[in-house]
Amino acid sequence: MSFEDMWRELAPIGRSATSGGYFRQPWASAEMELRAWFREAAAARDLVVEEDPFGNLVAWWGDPEGGDAVLTGSHLDSVLDGGAYDGPLGVVSALAAIDVMRERGVAPQRALGVGVFVEEEGSRFGRACLGSRLAVGAAAWDDVRDLTDRSGVALGDCVEGGAPTPWLDRVGRYVELHVEQGRGLVDLDAPVGVASGIWPHGRWRYDIGGRADHAGTTRMEDRVDPMLTYAMTALAANKQARLSGQRATFGRIEVAPNGTNAVPSRVTAWLDARAESDDALVSLVEAIQKQAAERAGRDGTDLTVTAESVTAAVAFDSGLSAEVGHDLPVLPTQAGHDAGVLQAAGIPSAMLFVRNPTGVSHSPDETAETADCVAGVEALAGVLTGLVV
Amino acid sequence: MSFEDMWRELAPIGRSATSGGYFRQPWASAEMELRAWFREAAAARDLVVEEDPFGNLVAWWGDPEGGDAVLTGSHLDSVLDGGAYDGPLGVVSALAAIDVMRERGVAPQRALGVGVFVEEEGSRFGRACLGSRLAVGAAAWDDVRDLTDRSGVALGDCVEGGAPTPWLDRVGRYVELHVEQGRGLVDLDAPVGVASGIWPHGRWRYDIGGRADHAGTTRMEDRVDPMLTYAMTALAANKQARLSGQRATFGRIEVAPNGTNAVPSRVTAWLDARAESDDALVSLVEAIQKQAAERAGRDGTDLTVTAESVTAAVAFDSGLSAEVGHDLPVLPTQAGHDAGVLQAAGIPSAMLFVRNPTGVSHSPDETAETADCVAGVEALAGVLTGLVV
Repeated sequence: MSFEDMWRELAPIGRSATSGGYFRQPWASAEMELRAWFREAAAARDLVVEEDPFGNLVAWWGDPEGGDAVLTGSHLDSVLDGGAYDGPLGVVSALAAIDVMRERGVAPQRALGVGVFVEEEGSRFGRACLGSRLAVGAAAWDDVRDLTDRSGVALGDCVEGGAPTPWLDRVGRYVELHVEQGRGLVDLDAPVGVASGIWPHGRWRYDIGGRADHAGTTRMEDRVDPMLTYAMTALAANKQARLSGQRATFGRIEVAPNGTNAVPSRVTAWLDARAESDDALVSLVEAIQKQAAERAGRDGTDLTVTAESVTAAVAFDSGLSAEVGHDLPVLPTQAGHDAGVLQAAGIPSAMLFVRNPTGVSHSPDETAETADCVAGVEALAGVLTGLVV
Repeated sequence: MSFEDMWRELAPIGRSATSGGYFRQPWASAEMELRAWFREAAAARDLVVEEDPFGNLVAWWGDPEGGDAVLTGSHLDSVLDGGAYDGPLGVVSALAAIDVMRERGVAPQRALGVGVFVEEEGSRFGRACLGSRLAVGAAAWDDVRDLTDRSGVALGDCVEGGAPTPWLDRVGRYVELHVEQGRGLVDLDAPVGVASGIWPHGRWRYDIGGRADHAGTTRMEDRVDPMLTYAMTALAANKQARLSGQRATFGRIEVAPNGTNAVPSRVTAWLDARAESDDALVSLVEAIQKQAAERAGRDGTDLTVTAESVTAAVAFDSGLSAEVGHDLPVLPTQAGHDAGVLQAAGIPSAMLFVRNPTGVSHSPDETAETADCVAGVEALAGVLTGLVV
């Protein structure tokens, strides 16, 4: 089955008829359907599928017991109302690359695995790259099992969990193909590129407590309104990021009681911040928090900021990237990826990017040209061939 | 059964164990339990209960067919996480007042009804005083039947609806008792007061469209982020209201997709605005909208403002208020009430307020002293006696 045929099979799964975007949250029906699809696609290729206690999947071509296996793949989950390519492109391209390698008669000297990491986006339990972090031991099961989704369902009720199995110990190198999430390759006029590294990034939860009151009868000067503290903080985050050339976003907010005629008692909002260096990220986050605290003082609100996840800068393995990249252009990314988690855990990793004509991602408008996707499969097949023979 | 006994019966219904506040949205289980309680309390007093096509209830003492009946009562629904007194105090006080009148041997010359208007708060379908507006014809069933709640359930699936029945044609005067929602009576050192009128007020929906994007990879200057337009608008609303001595609140917001790592595609937020005169309200709302539009222009977002409900200033019937109030202090209110809807529809109406020691309302912290509530029942019994004999 060709790349295009596989892509067509995935297209309707978890797609919103309203927006055209995807809702593929882990362990919800669409994502379960994708997992079943992956198992079938692997079986059709005589790949042996393994699942770890966290729901990460890997389909092996060859026996990985010898160690020094090569891993490729990506993830199948999406952000809320996300695009089709972010994640699935890497998984489908990996399967297609195996097909190409077999047609060419490649005889691997070491095992090649196609991995599917779970909850890469953190769209259900709020922790990005949760599956890969658990697998490498960068996150501990006991610290995350009680995380709940927006409906109050706990992670521990979705998946078995426990201690990580050592399946990644058998992996010597990881190569992840991903749609680019900016316009770097457009500017370079190249269909495929290789990543230099990932900006440091993280998520901070802002809990702002106020006092519920009647929106009509309570005088403005008598209020303790957390919405005002939030609003100033969202503007401050934007301004700080613009001034420093970094990134800061408030894209998620929860308000209690969220009634039109009530001053809120509480606003909870999440800051996503990224910067070109670890120091720049610290400065950015501190500057935003300082302005939030000043405003909270004026509003009389109670502010607590909690770092939910912070990931340091990652430079991908230079030797592997040189091997993967050879004549491809090199570019950094501001987006977190499982490849960054594996690299940080000591598994030499590299990433291939496929051109994104608009640069838009985490959006129903995310797209890629089929010709570029096919070029990505070709590049990946070449890279993997070099690594396994 | 005394006022205190009835109050104890209602206390646990729809109460959140977490906040201590009430969730009594119309046609949800807690409110259904309150309706059943009301029917039982009416039956225990040999009052005849009537329900109109919209779910408004009235319990009659005496036959209203003669016309010129006197109506009292209030509502049983609450805002999300609201207080115990807003609404139920008027209903329970009405039943208690009938008990007092009967103990005193009052023999009404005309019928006395205890009304329970549905969805007064608009906390489920977004339209305040929906039950009374439908009953008097100020809202048309065909215009509201397709309103949906936050789960997508339509009003038309909750209640029969249709053309209003003429039950209010038999009502000559309406007196609603309500907990005060400010500290006016505290300042006046009085347990009970009478309302002069209701400030004009309304709800405006702000739909702000942007473009979903990746929160990490999209440069700040390339974004079309509706959260920024919203944040500036919320601050502008607060500032305008403070400067002009009026009220403006953004207490409810919905964000799509509401993901931490995505620039939102859309923010929808509701402005609640109130002012001391119709002209002042127009000026306030226009000033806020102007600043929102300016910011939308800078952000590149798409702003649409829709007036969901606007209620003009109401002056309660002066003759009836004089009769109701005689030696009671007189004060205005910024809160909408069914009595305002009935007055605007030509039914002479008046309101009694019971002192609220903190002034807090639409909050779990809303409270009233039992002695003041009992004084309210006494005052209401006296007023109703004067009106029915």
